[in-house]
Amino acid sequence: MLKTSHRYQDTKDQAWSPNTWKTRFSLNYKGLPYKTQWVEYPHIAGLCKDIGAPPIGTYPNGSPEYTLPVIYDPNTKTAVSESALIARYLDKTYPDAPTLIPAATDALHAAFQEAIEMTFIVPLLPIMLPASNHQLNPVSEEYFRRTREARFGKLEEWSPLGPVRDAHWKAIEAGLHKVTKWLSMDGNEKLFFMGETISYADITLASFLIWIRKVLGPDSQEWKNVKRWDGGRWGKFMEAFEKYETVV
Amino acid sequence: MLKTSHRYQDTKDQAWSPNTWKTRFSLNYKGLPYKTQWVEYPHIAGLCKDIGAPPIGTYPNGSPEYTLPVIYDPNTKTAVSESALIARYLDKTYPDAPTLIPAATDALHAAFQEAIEMTFIVPLLPIMLPASNHQLNPVSEEYFRRTREARFGKLEEWSPLGPVRDAHWKAIEAGLHKVTKWLSMDGNEKLFFMGETISYADITLASFLIWIRKVLGPDSQEWKNVKRWDGGRWGKFMEAFEKYETVV
Repeated sequence: MLKTSHRYQDTKDQAWSPNTWKTRFSLNYKGLPYKTQWVEYPHIAGLCKDIGAPPIGTYPNGSPEYTLPVIYDPNTKTAVSESALIARYLDKTYPDAPTLIPAATDALHAAFQEAIEMTFIVPLLPIMLPASNHQLNPVSEEYFRRTREARFGKLEEWSPLGPVRDAHWKAIEAGLHKVTKWLSMDGNEKLFFMGETISYADITLASFLIWIRKVLGPDSQEWKNVKRWDGGRWGKFMEAFEKYETVV
Repeated sequence: MLKTSHRYQDTKDQAWSPNTWKTRFSLNYKGLPYKTQWVEYPHIAGLCKDIGAPPIGTYPNGSPEYTLPVIYDPNTKTAVSESALIARYLDKTYPDAPTLIPAATDALHAAFQEAIEMTFIVPLLPIMLPASNHQLNPVSEEYFRRTREARFGKLEEWSPLGPVRDAHWKAIEAGLHKVTKWLSMDGNEKLFFMGETISYADITLASFLIWIRKVLGPDSQEWKNVKRWDGGRWGKFMEAFEKYETVV
């Protein structure tokens, strides 16, 4: 029922989460060896505590907020939480590998995170969270649904098919169109934020675009739409990330 | 009455507008010679048309939106509208003068504009617009009041003294605190966005901070508060701009 009324695809992809994609893309782009530990939602806090990864903040009720991605680096015996801090840790610890955040752009990258959140990520959430829930194994599905619905109501009502969902996609399209404008403000149309070279800003964007392609499906009408927006730039953009999509 | 109930200072400063400060700081930082043409609000559109400066957009009613700053460059016989586009024009046309927006950061600078608007400028508006109105000559005051009040209601009610205005200042403080975090995300506390060197991101921020200092007054409690926030960084930050404050 859920599947047909919301047109979610039947296949599941273990590597669906945009936030963990930020770190997977970061590691793959830098060419650093690693292995993924798959974890169900109710076990995230325990895993973080086990490896010594700190919470990224506090929930309104005062309890610590543990979330993915986290990494544990056996070379330095260090655990790091939060994708943007992980990127900075990797640049600092492995300076000979390709740079994610050039030092002179560190604060601008931080401002970018704020801007992309408001412009693209927040508009995507009403589509993204319910469809992500459908990707999960039962133990995670129950946890994800309970925690999200406690704050924002029944997942199936966030973006019902029809005019509401259409309006959500219009907002997503407008957001990406604004990003396209950022990428040619000086009159030079760039594929990547810093020009020819991928940086963490692009990785952030790619981590949400890959969600649309993987979770809604590469043959879905939604992904086909995204690919043709803004003169086809987002399709080309994601082609450049194909060599960094390895899941290990 | 207005003055005492809203504690606006009695002196007026012709160079109060943050948006035109962006261009004044840009020109001063690049060391380019220019002269300012002072113009009252009702005459902005006419001046823009005279020099061939395009509108920056369209009002909801469909009429063109002419606004300051605009520049006319007699060397190239070119008029440019909108402070960020002016900065890019100046970098392109005068590449030997200090750079405002390094090419590799152009798109990140565009994202910064979005971020700083949401984080700091929008929270400042309920304080800024009514106090700015008080800076104006009668012909501009009437125009400014009429156009702003048509959209957002009586200026004096935007931020009445007491808990409402206190909450506005709390939001401004929180916004600047967030900016402070951006400036040390990699663990290196920086005075400027790109480190040691001023860029257009800093100029944007300075153009609104100078408004607080000039229009509310260098001895106002508000400016004293701003100067002590975040370990005194904003006072130091504005000291670095003193040599670019020349008004010609």
